[in-house]
Amino acid sequence: MTATPSTAGMPGLAYPEESLRRDARVLTTRFDGIFAAETVERYVLESYTALLRTATVKAHLTQNAVRFATSRLTALAEAKGALPATRPSVLFVCEQNAGRSQMAAVFAEMLSDGAVTVRSAGSAPSKELHPIVFEAMAETGLDLSGAFPKPLTDDVVQAADVVVTMGCGDACPVYPGKRYQDWSLADPADLPLEGVRQVRDDIRNRVEALLSDLGVTTKDINS
Amino acid sequence: MTATPSTAGMPGLAYPEESLRRDARVLTTRFDGIFAAETVERYVLESYTALLRTATVKAHLTQNAVRFATSRLTALAEAKGALPATRPSVLFVCEQNAGRSQMAAVFAEMLSDGAVTVRSAGSAPSKELHPIVFEAMAETGLDLSGAFPKPLTDDVVQAADVVVTMGCGDACPVYPGKRYQDWSLADPADLPLEGVRQVRDDIRNRVEALLSDLGVTTKDINS
Repeated sequence: MTATPSTAGMPGLAYPEESLRRDARVLTTRFDGIFAAETVERYVLESYTALLRTATVKAHLTQNAVRFATSRLTALAEAKGALPATRPSVLFVCEQNAGRSQMAAVFAEMLSDGAVTVRSAGSAPSKELHPIVFEAMAETGLDLSGAFPKPLTDDVVQAADVVVTMGCGDACPVYPGKRYQDWSLADPADLPLEGVRQVRDDIRNRVEALLSDLGVTTKDINS
Repeated sequence: MTATPSTAGMPGLAYPEESLRRDARVLTTRFDGIFAAETVERYVLESYTALLRTATVKAHLTQNAVRFATSRLTALAEAKGALPATRPSVLFVCEQNAGRSQMAAVFAEMLSDGAVTVRSAGSAPSKELHPIVFEAMAETGLDLSGAFPKPLTDDVVQAADVVVTMGCGDACPVYPGKRYQDWSLADPADLPLEGVRQVRDDIRNRVEALLSDLGVTTKDINS
């Protein structure tokens, strides 16, 4: 090839290849006997590129990519029966994974006290969570600061027993053998804080009903 | 799990699992000795979900997902040295993969007469190509009707010798050992046909210069 490297002045981030490949090797050990090294490496590198495309804040990108890849590989292992799926698995999907599905996920995690596996995703993930959603959740003592928007992937749908969609239209595949719920909720991005509080409380009530339906006793997280 | 299937009335498409798994088995044979069946199946199923999330027209989704997965697996095999990369490989990236990068890709394919490997992708792929772009390209005798927006993935960047970015900011990873060009072009989505024609002709000139730079003789495709 006549191509010569010339990356100076490029707008993008230098690809943290060494760090990502090291993380992939650690994960390969963790999923030993379940996934080949090739699969794990693909998951880490593709998760990185997928988050890079949409994330505004690049500060924790490598770390978030590894968390995302780990969650996806765990989901796939559960779906294949290679890891025990002893708890019901719930997936929340909205368009941006920046408000509604993130609120639902943290409520489901906290209220179930770990008795369900919870994941969330977006059909068109936004660059970051809506700041007003952080604020409304902080009022209930719940911290979303580690959360980030993630694209909907096949693996997390495969692993779910229940898929809850919230305004993502026909962008989520409907797999047989799963239970689907479509929740009609206003988009917090368009609302003042008082409106976001109402959506938040509505989501909490719906999550409590869903957990009860799944036979899970909810924990009293706050008033 | 207490979850019971209930997909009636859901907005989504039924997941064409049998058809996708059959396509994955055919591709596994094609990439025999290069990729494990697990990797190929993951590529087909994840490519389907990625396109489903953003595509408006669902008619050719399974077919496009298999084309996309095949292109990605071929790219990865070339990047690994498992398939011979005898031709220079060029990747065009814009935000939506709906106008500029699609025009550049078809010009590069036709003008090089197959002497370069050409791929295109978007950092935030749109639902479909801009209709006005079809129209402007049809005037030059080039048909974009089989093209569809595709998300930027790690594999196609890995395989590229030259990466041309067009207004996708810092959403494309900068890998070492590649040649980068950033082309400043107006977005055809915001332009009348006359403006799109200017962008089209500008892209054609830039593609010709790039091919010349790569030592490729350009074919006379039309006046």
